[in-house]
Amino acid sequence: MSMTISSPAGLTDQAIAQTLIAGADAARTSTLGRFRTQLAVDNKYSVGFDPVTEADREAETRIREVIAARFPDHGIIGEEWDTKDTATRFNWIIDPIDGTRAFISGVPVWGTLIGLTHEGRAIAGLMEQPYAGERWLAVGGRLEHTHNGQPIPAAVSNVTRLSQARTSTTNPDMFRGPHLAAWTAISERALQVRYGLDCYAYCLLASGHIDLVVEAGLKDVDIAPLVPIIEAAGGIVTTWDGGRAEQGGTCIAAATEQLHEEAMRVLRDAMLD
Amino acid sequence: MSMTISSPAGLTDQAIAQTLIAGADAARTSTLGRFRTQLAVDNKYSVGFDPVTEADREAETRIREVIAARFPDHGIIGEEWDTKDTATRFNWIIDPIDGTRAFISGVPVWGTLIGLTHEGRAIAGLMEQPYAGERWLAVGGRLEHTHNGQPIPAAVSNVTRLSQARTSTTNPDMFRGPHLAAWTAISERALQVRYGLDCYAYCLLASGHIDLVVEAGLKDVDIAPLVPIIEAAGGIVTTWDGGRAEQGGTCIAAATEQLHEEAMRVLRDAMLD
Repeated sequence: MSMTISSPAGLTDQAIAQTLIAGADAARTSTLGRFRTQLAVDNKYSVGFDPVTEADREAETRIREVIAARFPDHGIIGEEWDTKDTATRFNWIIDPIDGTRAFISGVPVWGTLIGLTHEGRAIAGLMEQPYAGERWLAVGGRLEHTHNGQPIPAAVSNVTRLSQARTSTTNPDMFRGPHLAAWTAISERALQVRYGLDCYAYCLLASGHIDLVVEAGLKDVDIAPLVPIIEAAGGIVTTWDGGRAEQGGTCIAAATEQLHEEAMRVLRDAMLD
Repeated sequence: MSMTISSPAGLTDQAIAQTLIAGADAARTSTLGRFRTQLAVDNKYSVGFDPVTEADREAETRIREVIAARFPDHGIIGEEWDTKDTATRFNWIIDPIDGTRAFISGVPVWGTLIGLTHEGRAIAGLMEQPYAGERWLAVGGRLEHTHNGQPIPAAVSNVTRLSQARTSTTNPDMFRGPHLAAWTAISERALQVRYGLDCYAYCLLASGHIDLVVEAGLKDVDIAPLVPIIEAAGGIVTTWDGGRAEQGGTCIAAATEQLHEEAMRVLRDAMLD
């Protein structure tokens, strides 16, 4: 899935990849340096519970600095700080720590997400899990997965049936009403279900170890950087309506077209009941 | 929590530690070498679903060889192969891949468990997660946690209240009847819940990142090797009745006595309702 972009000078695949990697490098001290330490957790931790940590904020600041220095005219959308100038054709999308709850519990399945959209469509993305030493990087339709710097071949599985699908959703408690019926229908038919993986689930799908991810309530920063990773691996990612996934909301990612179709049918039927 | 054991010649803390480490070393090729590859998954994978892999079986064989060569008179209880001579006072307990479902989905939270019991009481244990490069080793009441060979201080948190407790259970679907009511009461009162962690949850508790683990339906091999790790970290682990946890069944592990008491009370009240 290679694509030609009519881009401003300097926006080569190489420049994009270097920026994504430099952003991840800049974030790592703030994230990994605070992982499994006593965090100064934000007030939100005790009221309601939407954990936001110093690590999150500082990492996003570092990533924004990297991007702004290289592409001062581009927009930036982040999880923690205000959006910058998204009237441009190119926007960078940042989630410094996707999976904050995993982070807080010491589970190394959170990730730093950085993506690039061109006129709303995701064209490049990076996910890094620094504790386990893993990175997925998709630019120009090519995916590179590394573990401790060593490249590992990555491609989706060939699973075509829901009954054979290793399936994941981050939090079964996030589904309500028709969405809950839809998730229940999926989970009852799937081979097995894994919870709590956030971005890591989509990357495992891109590497062929998970076959299906079904979620709702996503923000753009949760999913846009992952879209190029899934697509470069040969997978399919859409909303539950079959539209582009970059804006968030509901999301279904599948290893194969057949599995995507079957899961979409199960979702639709369950919501009609 | 140091203890004196009236032991046969050679059964020093050092000999125990060396055997646990040698067992984990011997297992690693079989486990890590098959992680995230196309596994020849057992028939059970498609019927019912109790995944047992070649990795599991081969790793246990390797660990048994290590133990039998060093302590030919000791008993061995494993997940995959028949029990050996448990009439002895010392028994080694092996779960070569605890968390087989995580293993199959490529999630690096499974672990190799090896423990030693003396007259039924767990006195030493090891958990290794080789992909993330982590090991927890408890011998003689001392806990050593390493990441890529580097020691990391490990001790339980000081969380005393359920409302502040980062809580985990492997599979919310494993609870039935009164057990389901009990788990629901816990999860509704806890700060947050993580699923799917198996042995990794107990080790994160030993390192202060998870505060409470509540499970049911455990086998002896799932929990006995973890008991010394939890206890050496200052934590408490019992059955839901408050008895020793080595035999499996229900299990509750907590960072502090106060948290253990509160959670036990919630469990009891919910099951009475």
